[in-house]
Amino acid sequence: MPEIIIGIDPGYADAGYGVISAGGGREKCLAYGSIRTPAGAPAGDRLKTLYGRLKEIIVRFKPRRAAIEKLYFSTNVKTALSVAEARGVILLCLEDLGVPCREFGPGEVKVAVSGHGGAAKSQVQKMTKTLLGLKEIPKPDDAADALALALTLANTRKFDKL
Amino acid sequence: MPEIIIGIDPGYADAGYGVISAGGGREKCLAYGSIRTPAGAPAGDRLKTLYGRLKEIIVRFKPRRAAIEKLYFSTNVKTALSVAEARGVILLCLEDLGVPCREFGPGEVKVAVSGHGGAAKSQVQKMTKTLLGLKEIPKPDDAADALALALTLANTRKFDKL
Repeated sequence: MPEIIIGIDPGYADAGYGVISAGGGREKCLAYGSIRTPAGAPAGDRLKTLYGRLKEIIVRFKPRRAAIEKLYFSTNVKTALSVAEARGVILLCLEDLGVPCREFGPGEVKVAVSGHGGAAKSQVQKMTKTLLGLKEIPKPDDAADALALALTLANTRKFDKL
Repeated sequence: MPEIIIGIDPGYADAGYGVISAGGGREKCLAYGSIRTPAGAPAGDRLKTLYGRLKEIIVRFKPRRAAIEKLYFSTNVKTALSVAEARGVILLCLEDLGVPCREFGPGEVKVAVSGHGGAAKSQVQKMTKTLLGLKEIPKPDDAADALALALTLANTRKFDKL
């Protein structure tokens, strides 16, 4: 019985999502994309848009579990704080809709998807395309990252339970 | 006609809140305290508790406007990211309940409450107590900070409109 998994790459202006079905053979891609929030709008407005769009996606695909990227500090501190605000809203949305969530760091995604932790971003994207039988590398980047996160959770599932 | 204002000092483990009534003479303190989230619980669980408790406070006191502290980087980067996640959820809650929100940095609060930007935290707390006619300095610290934020917005109101 396949299981639906959603991967989420948190972001304030754009948050990537990828929905896959896993188990019983090859993983399949059901949907992916990027949730854009209205540029220049007040923070509360943007965060509400993010919550609302993510909720629509979850209600539509009914994922049983979610994978979200762990946050690390980039050089741009202001961006990191905004991304964290968005991430808090994403975690709340998953909790409200009863979707248990697991966090993965970039290294864990690289190992799970490409087999080694030193893989380049482009290698991870190519492997994501191959594993899901897609014709092209998913765009934009945050959607590709979200699919890789979903694959990581699907792979982890084989070894342990959330 | 007095106006109800809520001040919020964002936090992940503890978020301070302070509710005042302003306009038509001295500001009055209606309520203050700290919203604690269950230590050790998953992030989604804690953020949901924060949203739920804040919603209760807003529904009870019906503030017309909110003041929230701007985030800056402390030395503890991990804490800053968690606080930002909580802050995102607080901004969402205010947006959902239609409470317009304004941000203030620590320097703005010091000027508005104590008259000068170099004031010590203890001076701001004493002035908060005096301005609100309280018998003691509000505890815990994050509740005192939240009341100072509410006073800042009340004071700003005299000069401009949100």
